[in-house]
Amino acid sequence: MATVEELKLRVRELENELIKCKQKQCAVEDAHSQALNRPKIDKMSAEVVDSNPYSRLMALKRMGIVDDYEKIRTFTVAVVGVGGVGSVTAEMLTRCGIGKLLLFDYDKVELANMNRLFFQPHQAGLSKVEAAEHTLRNINPDVLFETHNYNITTMENFTHFMDRISHGGLEEGKPVDLILSCVDNFEARMAINTACNELGQIWMESGVSENAVSGHIQLIIPGETACFACAPPLVVAANIDEKTLKREGVCAASLPTTMGVVAGLLVQNVLKYLLKFGTVSYYLGYNAMQDFFPSMAMKANPQCNDRHCRRQQEEYKKKEAEQPKVEVVQEEEEVVHEDNEWGIELVSEVTDEELKAASGVVPDLPEGITVAYTIPTEDTTGGDTVEETEQSLEDLMAQMRKL
Amino acid sequence: MATVEELKLRVRELENELIKCKQKQCAVEDAHSQALNRPKIDKMSAEVVDSNPYSRLMALKRMGIVDDYEKIRTFTVAVVGVGGVGSVTAEMLTRCGIGKLLLFDYDKVELANMNRLFFQPHQAGLSKVEAAEHTLRNINPDVLFETHNYNITTMENFTHFMDRISHGGLEEGKPVDLILSCVDNFEARMAINTACNELGQIWMESGVSENAVSGHIQLIIPGETACFACAPPLVVAANIDEKTLKREGVCAASLPTTMGVVAGLLVQNVLKYLLKFGTVSYYLGYNAMQDFFPSMAMKANPQCNDRHCRRQQEEYKKKEAEQPKVEVVQEEEEVVHEDNEWGIELVSEVTDEELKAASGVVPDLPEGITVAYTIPTEDTTGGDTVEETEQSLEDLMAQMRKL
Repeated sequence: MATVEELKLRVRELENELIKCKQKQCAVEDAHSQALNRPKIDKMSAEVVDSNPYSRLMALKRMGIVDDYEKIRTFTVAVVGVGGVGSVTAEMLTRCGIGKLLLFDYDKVELANMNRLFFQPHQAGLSKVEAAEHTLRNINPDVLFETHNYNITTMENFTHFMDRISHGGLEEGKPVDLILSCVDNFEARMAINTACNELGQIWMESGVSENAVSGHIQLIIPGETACFACAPPLVVAANIDEKTLKREGVCAASLPTTMGVVAGLLVQNVLKYLLKFGTVSYYLGYNAMQDFFPSMAMKANPQCNDRHCRRQQEEYKKKEAEQPKVEVVQEEEEVVHEDNEWGIELVSEVTDEELKAASGVVPDLPEGITVAYTIPTEDTTGGDTVEETEQSLEDLMAQMRKL
Repeated sequence: MATVEELKLRVRELENELIKCKQKQCAVEDAHSQALNRPKIDKMSAEVVDSNPYSRLMALKRMGIVDDYEKIRTFTVAVVGVGGVGSVTAEMLTRCGIGKLLLFDYDKVELANMNRLFFQPHQAGLSKVEAAEHTLRNINPDVLFETHNYNITTMENFTHFMDRISHGGLEEGKPVDLILSCVDNFEARMAINTACNELGQIWMESGVSENAVSGHIQLIIPGETACFACAPPLVVAANIDEKTLKREGVCAASLPTTMGVVAGLLVQNVLKYLLKFGTVSYYLGYNAMQDFFPSMAMKANPQCNDRHCRRQQEEYKKKEAEQPKVEVVQEEEEVVHEDNEWGIELVSEVTDEELKAASGVVPDLPEGITVAYTIPTEDTTGGDTVEETEQSLEDLMAQMRKL
């Protein structure tokens, strides 16, 4: 039987142990919760102090690159596919202080994804959108996030996807400003294409080849530039038989370098488009083997199978006809690239003979670019070739002259 | 005075509370430490399972891109400067499964760095090398890390830096395989240049302009290609008065996009160099405003101010002279780029007239490239122009022909 003295001693011991335990618990929790915090910032400031996460971005104004950097906070971007390219794309936009991000993906994080940037081993098993939102919110709590853990290609989800991109803007009810396709398959790209043609929604496409050493980005303006149904999707040459990838136990190769470069080129194009600086690229390829970067632009196909694309083309033609010949009219909500050296009208510079030489629906493409898929054509008369604008000729000529 | 019964009750209460506290503490610590763990992997496997972090990299073999991907584990790379470019560079190499990384930086993480990838707000105040090692080790525990939290340009640290790059390889005592300069100032670049010339150490340089919209990477092979003392360091045109950056309360602009692209191009070049695939770039610029990527190569200057550079040039000449004219002899520890379409000899294709037309020590550069600094010349006779090889002419001609 324990004595009073023994019991008192035990009480004192336990009390001390409990204090220590609680202290340690607090320290661990503190370290953890402190880790997740930086206070929200109401207004972007250009003040050059170590504690200002926006000083280096606001400096773009002083450098004469961007007129109104703060405007970034008014934009909403939807990222479809939060994998090797999409996750880095979302992180870059978050660090740049974008207003709102919508993330769509139905995949889970796996250790097999650790050869690309962004996700970490402890996130394995979590849904990609959930894990991404957690990391991104810690990086920049000023950004609004909306995540959807589903496959956009099923009927029901597609309807919901359409609804969110047309009403999920920063001001609920307004459409998003831009959609970025960072998916890895044709079906999902076509779903985005269908949605954007119907809504007249501008979007950018991105892709990386299965051998991991090439990629591309592409700006699609419904009615103006070729959509995915207008012409086969373009990729930088890879020459891989898709069938070899479908076998059990076989996967595509990927590299953090190629995916990081493609995400960087994509978000750079987004910033140039939204904040109106530099030249927005219509198509930019990246061939890592040769460090070769083909660029081009391609206008919409009047015989496109997508009726919404054809309708957008009619509307674009009407709008073009209404515009005065020389002056560029600034319209609300309209994309006007004032610095566009490529010529925004995308008029073909290809002669009729050259057009005839190009066979079938495959356009005559610059070096390093091939078509990724062949779209079955209902109309098999042939010769309905997509006209092509090859702006890089001037660039090349200018470079040649310098040499 | 407490009774025995009261004391027993108190003991029971405290014991229960302590158990609960310890359980909670364990849960918090578990959540935290689980977050930091994936087991080490002895041997890289190509098995296609979700749990294999190397499956997508090993697939590069099946795709015919890399012959021996596992060799990545035998290489040591030193990254000097762990900022916007260096941190992403280190992360990419870590995710690729590099053998060993040496990290050099003396800076602390600040919230003002949050506009670039990699560091997170909760790391503010930590040294960059310490924070980076912690994150990178969690991402891939198979990589060996060695960090140095100091400025390499002071006398004492420079000596230690020289010692570590010549003895800090995977097998202690052996030199590192490659040094990557990811610093943001001329002094640190010159320190790396001096060390590499003395040691005959191959390195790659990287840089981003103060206006955040251009950058470059460059491969420097002592004695063979121009070093930093041979010719003024090259950057993509920026036209910024350095003095405007030195004032109180003024900082350079930076973007996660440009820095991510430069890091991606740099590590891609590292992988191509170490794993022998594709064409290694000597100089690759990135102009984000126009999505223009100038490339070139420049050979070493026989009148270089650095005597170790001149010595390396003599040794390179001797080695070249000893080689049979047509056959490429594979030598241990020597860089032989078998697929190099540029012509490794870097023979000038510039005519004498063109050389004379170029004035002073500034070489005649392709469009988009200007010199970043002017190096004071002790020898002011002028005309000792660095000869220039412009390989991109062939590429441009080939592209022209295709159009």
